[in-house]
Amino acid sequence: MKIGAVEAGGTKIICATGTREGEILERVKIDTMTPDKSMPQVIDFFRKNPVEAIGIGTFGPADINEKSPTYGFITTTPKPGWNGYDLRGEFTRNFDVPVAFDTDVNGAVLGEYLWGAAKGSASAVYMTIGTGVGAGAIIDGKILKGISHPEMGHMLVRRHPGDTYKGFCPYHGDCLEGLTAGTAIGARAGKPGGEIDRSDPVWQYITYYIAQALFSIALVLMPERFILGGGVMARDHLFGTVREKFLEISNGYMQFEEVLNGIDSYIVAPGLGGDAGIRGALGLAIALLRRG
Amino acid sequence: MKIGAVEAGGTKIICATGTREGEILERVKIDTMTPDKSMPQVIDFFRKNPVEAIGIGTFGPADINEKSPTYGFITTTPKPGWNGYDLRGEFTRNFDVPVAFDTDVNGAVLGEYLWGAAKGSASAVYMTIGTGVGAGAIIDGKILKGISHPEMGHMLVRRHPGDTYKGFCPYHGDCLEGLTAGTAIGARAGKPGGEIDRSDPVWQYITYYIAQALFSIALVLMPERFILGGGVMARDHLFGTVREKFLEISNGYMQFEEVLNGIDSYIVAPGLGGDAGIRGALGLAIALLRRG
Repeated sequence: MKIGAVEAGGTKIICATGTREGEILERVKIDTMTPDKSMPQVIDFFRKNPVEAIGIGTFGPADINEKSPTYGFITTTPKPGWNGYDLRGEFTRNFDVPVAFDTDVNGAVLGEYLWGAAKGSASAVYMTIGTGVGAGAIIDGKILKGISHPEMGHMLVRRHPGDTYKGFCPYHGDCLEGLTAGTAIGARAGKPGGEIDRSDPVWQYITYYIAQALFSIALVLMPERFILGGGVMARDHLFGTVREKFLEISNGYMQFEEVLNGIDSYIVAPGLGGDAGIRGALGLAIALLRRG
Repeated sequence: MKIGAVEAGGTKIICATGTREGEILERVKIDTMTPDKSMPQVIDFFRKNPVEAIGIGTFGPADINEKSPTYGFITTTPKPGWNGYDLRGEFTRNFDVPVAFDTDVNGAVLGEYLWGAAKGSASAVYMTIGTGVGAGAIIDGKILKGISHPEMGHMLVRRHPGDTYKGFCPYHGDCLEGLTAGTAIGARAGKPGGEIDRSDPVWQYITYYIAQALFSIALVLMPERFILGGGVMARDHLFGTVREKFLEISNGYMQFEEVLNGIDSYIVAPGLGGDAGIRGALGLAIALLRRG
């Protein structure tokens, strides 16, 4: 029997079936419109492709607390129709199978841990820098969560002296997301990030902010590995700069072999490439089945 | 049979015996001199007071990785005689009992989780702000560790515009510890922290930095509770200011009941008072015995 996976993103909802070994078999992409338009197509996919469990990795914020009365709901999003939407419930009402529910980045870090860049590590952090900034972590083989999922995208960073951009986060202005997400990059240059030259100072600013956030996260979690994904990090040249700035900020403080001798394998690109999210969602379903 | 506990601090080593229920029975304080002067007194205490297990909570940095060849060693400290000292080995060579080894703050958070302010919580962070700044965390009932223990004292914070002090951290200058530890407070005023008036701006600076660090840690770990200990936090009036500044920085982003309705029980003083460290060390030994 096949396993189902849903990666619910801001612009697309990817639905897939796969194997217990993490391979994707079928997949479709559905535009993220309002739930009443998108969800019937999602449900239809799984009617045609029956599965024994479904894993959902969703954009957030979402209620991932299994004991909460609103477990499985999207919470406070400005996205029309999705605020307070019972996403997990739509699946449990339609299919009599176990349904796992977590954030997209928690799914992605699980996928990378099972089959990607963090395979064989005991701990890892996956951060996506794209239209938003978010991160998930695996510690001792388990997805990290407390009273909610992490919200590392809103960490505060020190401003680069050359950077005068105010930041676009409605809560914090110039938090990590407010300064480094795609919108923030484009706003500085007046054109999309993809058209900005490699020599533009914006890349110095954002790599400085990302390196600061990684340093702070490292001091809290001490993970074996950082995996950076998302549209912004698809620009490969940013990895080298982030690694350099991380070492500069640490200034010799992190005397661990993993960091000092292996900075190129300490801060890495996703091993699953663009499939980290959907294969992570598959991983969420598999983990739920194993838990019983 | 009794359980042994050792809290190895920068100025004192506390040795104690206690019960499996976390009560302290006997205790002595020994000055932290060089190991060859202090350790014979420590060993002597446990010869006179036999125990079935010993838990050590130590100043750091220390190697707490059980698989490491230098597990149980103090690592890179400027403290004369302690750099590379095999602290745990001194106990295992002298006593044929299980010996648990962790940082003082990891011990303290465990003590608070078992018997103090975090009793009944699934997760908590204990931060000490004293001669140094350090923190330990419990997540899902387990002490958080990755490739090493956390080093949250070295997180970078945004500078308060009124604060011109450079910070004293030899690695980072003005990281959290470099700006908020006792030394940093005294250096600004030219007198010990205990003699500085409540209205002095230094308290506005350091509470701003502490609140920033708590906010960043909250976004990573989402703990149920923050416990602030150490000599600096013995000034009770600081708690109210840290709580206010935390909510200001969050700016409505952390929409959790624990934070919004319970800020007074979200950021709290240690339930065990000054005994968090030694009772935590007892907890480390008890946890090791339970693990078998």
